[in-house]
Amino acid sequence: MSKSDFGLYGLAVMGQNLVLNVESRGFQVSVYNRTTSVTDDFIAAHPGKKLVGAHTVEDFVQSLARPRKIHIMVKSTAVKDTDRDAVDAVIEQLIPLLDEDDIIIDGGNSFYQATERRDAYLATKGLRFIGAGVSGGEEGARKGPSIMPGGPASTWEVMKPIFESIAAKVDGEPCVIHIGPGGAGHYVKMIHNGIEYGDMQLICEAYNIFKHAGFTTDEMAAIFNEWNDGELQSYLIQITGKALEQIDPETGHSVVELIVDKAGQKGTGQWTLLNAAENAVVISTINAAVEARILSSKKKERVLASKELRGPAPTGALTMGDGITPWPKEILVQKVHDALYASKIISYAQGLDLIKTMSGKKNWDLDLGRIAAIWRGGCIIRARFLNFITDAYRSNPGLGNLMLDPYFKNILNGNQQSWREVVSLAMLNGIPVPAFSASLGYYDSYRAERLPANLLQAQRDFFGAHTYERVDKPEGEFFHTDWPEVIG
Amino acid sequence: MSKSDFGLYGLAVMGQNLVLNVESRGFQVSVYNRTTSVTDDFIAAHPGKKLVGAHTVEDFVQSLARPRKIHIMVKSTAVKDTDRDAVDAVIEQLIPLLDEDDIIIDGGNSFYQATERRDAYLATKGLRFIGAGVSGGEEGARKGPSIMPGGPASTWEVMKPIFESIAAKVDGEPCVIHIGPGGAGHYVKMIHNGIEYGDMQLICEAYNIFKHAGFTTDEMAAIFNEWNDGELQSYLIQITGKALEQIDPETGHSVVELIVDKAGQKGTGQWTLLNAAENAVVISTINAAVEARILSSKKKERVLASKELRGPAPTGALTMGDGITPWPKEILVQKVHDALYASKIISYAQGLDLIKTMSGKKNWDLDLGRIAAIWRGGCIIRARFLNFITDAYRSNPGLGNLMLDPYFKNILNGNQQSWREVVSLAMLNGIPVPAFSASLGYYDSYRAERLPANLLQAQRDFFGAHTYERVDKPEGEFFHTDWPEVIG
Repeated sequence: MSKSDFGLYGLAVMGQNLVLNVESRGFQVSVYNRTTSVTDDFIAAHPGKKLVGAHTVEDFVQSLARPRKIHIMVKSTAVKDTDRDAVDAVIEQLIPLLDEDDIIIDGGNSFYQATERRDAYLATKGLRFIGAGVSGGEEGARKGPSIMPGGPASTWEVMKPIFESIAAKVDGEPCVIHIGPGGAGHYVKMIHNGIEYGDMQLICEAYNIFKHAGFTTDEMAAIFNEWNDGELQSYLIQITGKALEQIDPETGHSVVELIVDKAGQKGTGQWTLLNAAENAVVISTINAAVEARILSSKKKERVLASKELRGPAPTGALTMGDGITPWPKEILVQKVHDALYASKIISYAQGLDLIKTMSGKKNWDLDLGRIAAIWRGGCIIRARFLNFITDAYRSNPGLGNLMLDPYFKNILNGNQQSWREVVSLAMLNGIPVPAFSASLGYYDSYRAERLPANLLQAQRDFFGAHTYERVDKPEGEFFHTDWPEVIG
Repeated sequence: MSKSDFGLYGLAVMGQNLVLNVESRGFQVSVYNRTTSVTDDFIAAHPGKKLVGAHTVEDFVQSLARPRKIHIMVKSTAVKDTDRDAVDAVIEQLIPLLDEDDIIIDGGNSFYQATERRDAYLATKGLRFIGAGVSGGEEGARKGPSIMPGGPASTWEVMKPIFESIAAKVDGEPCVIHIGPGGAGHYVKMIHNGIEYGDMQLICEAYNIFKHAGFTTDEMAAIFNEWNDGELQSYLIQITGKALEQIDPETGHSVVELIVDKAGQKGTGQWTLLNAAENAVVISTINAAVEARILSSKKKERVLASKELRGPAPTGALTMGDGITPWPKEILVQKVHDALYASKIISYAQGLDLIKTMSGKKNWDLDLGRIAAIWRGGCIIRARFLNFITDAYRSNPGLGNLMLDPYFKNILNGNQQSWREVVSLAMLNGIPVPAFSASLGYYDSYRAERLPANLLQAQRDFFGAHTYERVDKPEGEFFHTDWPEVIG
């Protein structure tokens, strides 16, 4: 039998779908799974395909053409320099069986620092390593995911034909590029997931406003379906519309309304927050999204608190401060649309700012425009508006904050009034909109020529002699006031 | 000469003031500083006091009565298990000179994990260690700080007489208790600093609203001075009033208005965020405060953005959605007061929730009521309202979230309407109030019987088969919907 072009280790659903995707592009694929029956069942379920099932790791490795390309799909849990996990165990299993220049690809959601450690370690063994973030869920893995590979450019060149053939395509361009060296691929995937958290939370806040405004589930489904034909066109808006249409066959009720409001989370949202805090970059929208999931999970506490902590007196309709319902339904929908779009832009501006900061710190030289381009297809955050992000960085590679790109600036300037009104409406009516309001807070802080931090500096100098700069003196000159003594 | 009761290593301003404080309580104190002239100058400046200046570490150690008590005041920078810093260097210098059961106290702002490492290390040497957070700035160190010592209870008993005599007193109670074992003292000090960030930012947001409402600096000083006689009485409100009164002798202008609006930050705010993210605890108000400092530091970007990104059309006065100035000045002041107080309660509820979470995780058995009690004096966040926190935990040691204590619940319920109106007013007028709004978002999320996370769970099940629970089925039973296929 001929040697296989590609090997996949770990036949969970994502792994299986990835194998079928690679095979469908004309490659022969060897597969291995610890539980042999999973391998046998998988091979049996796909007769006539160019698949090779191996029962031992030795046979698996020997079945591959050199340089071997072994894609690992096992769950990573390492989050510290000192952690070792299943990915490391598989790597150790493979090392003695591999030959020089063979390539191991980690396609799981590994922490980027673990990827950097593995990259350096495998280099000492004469082996090559790619840490590739893969987004798109089960369906993406099968039909074409967005792939974010990190590692040496020379290794990328070897993997490129396979990666480009299996990736999603948008306007003929494959949704994969060489992101950068070492952990850059998994890092960018982590931020992608953080942005995904933000997108999902913003949609939930829009939905929650509509619910409080008395919209039926059908009406809401129609709104999201309509939005999916416009500026907000995106996978998440699309599935929101479809999800809201779904009826539970057993009860005849809306499935969405039957679901318990407790959100789960995996590590990547949390990692994104930690990374932002370490780098002193503000990602307040993503932050609010992660926080919202945490609070949602405290269902029992919330039910208890709902009986104790008061909201505004209910008026039976959404009202502004004057107690009057402010807008007809179609105007409310338009304003929420505008608020959502503005908030979404802020969330991406923050996420890209974080990528840019880390890129500089790590000398990764990441191309934000090309990164946005490969998010246009395959992945969970795929959206029409990513084209504009790509355009923004293409026309101005040195662009500072995304908000200042002419296209996005115009959207923000046009939407800011509605955005303010929607957030106020929600707050006056007791509807939590943490991500909408965090986004607006960022916008208003960032565009503030003068913030009240002068008072804060006065306080710090008062109690800690931290000194301050003065508006009427050159930058870098520091002053201290001999503040009056305080008693008590 | 008799042996000294206490030794202090590191004669920067805080160290000097602490020495004078200890000496003033009847103790003889030995001092050492790497630069000998600093020691000599300090001794010369304080004739007739029970002070012993040592020129070598050997002489310093030999001058102390056993068990020796050596308080280190040098800057710590270690933030990781593997970091070694000046505190470690001093400890290594001392170890060979000390005898069994001698005590080293680290009184700097050390990272609690470094304290845990040092605690364990010194135990192997037969020495005792206390990691003590000390708050109060220079003045507190001299007159009576709030001290948060962590370490073995038996070591605390030895230190207690000195610590209790030098600490601030409130109603006769010293502002020091044995916080808990190991790193608990420095941990609680870290959260104290995070809460301090929150308090300062909330005051700045109030000030910023008043500025936009056209209040003069004198008017604002009067407001804070008046607030300091009421519910908000606190050191930070007090110094805010005093700072706003301060006139620059050179220009005749308000000092506060001459200060550049770029805030600095030290590590503890960032550490608090990292710790909250690691523990999945929401501290959104403190988070917003740290973020506000970060954004304030981007002054050049802000000035540029202020010309590009639009706010609401200026009307010359603060207006609500209807374009009408909503309230007379005194009503505005009252509403901002209520919003500030409510937001402050949220910030403390979050910070205490984080302490409680860590206490459980580390088996520290921390007493939140007693911790609040020692913050009532000496430290930067000292405030009247801490009495109510102490009362809350004293009357209900098992209290969940602080918001649910009857006293605080009543404040929140009474203030929530004004709070909503103030945040809306600010947002409609383009005034950033990230901490006010994060607090309100937390309140409204926490008291929401139903959050929109059901839609989020639908999305997660749609793209990732994450499954969900149902409101009409038992908890712990998970469901998956076979969602329609999505094209594109």
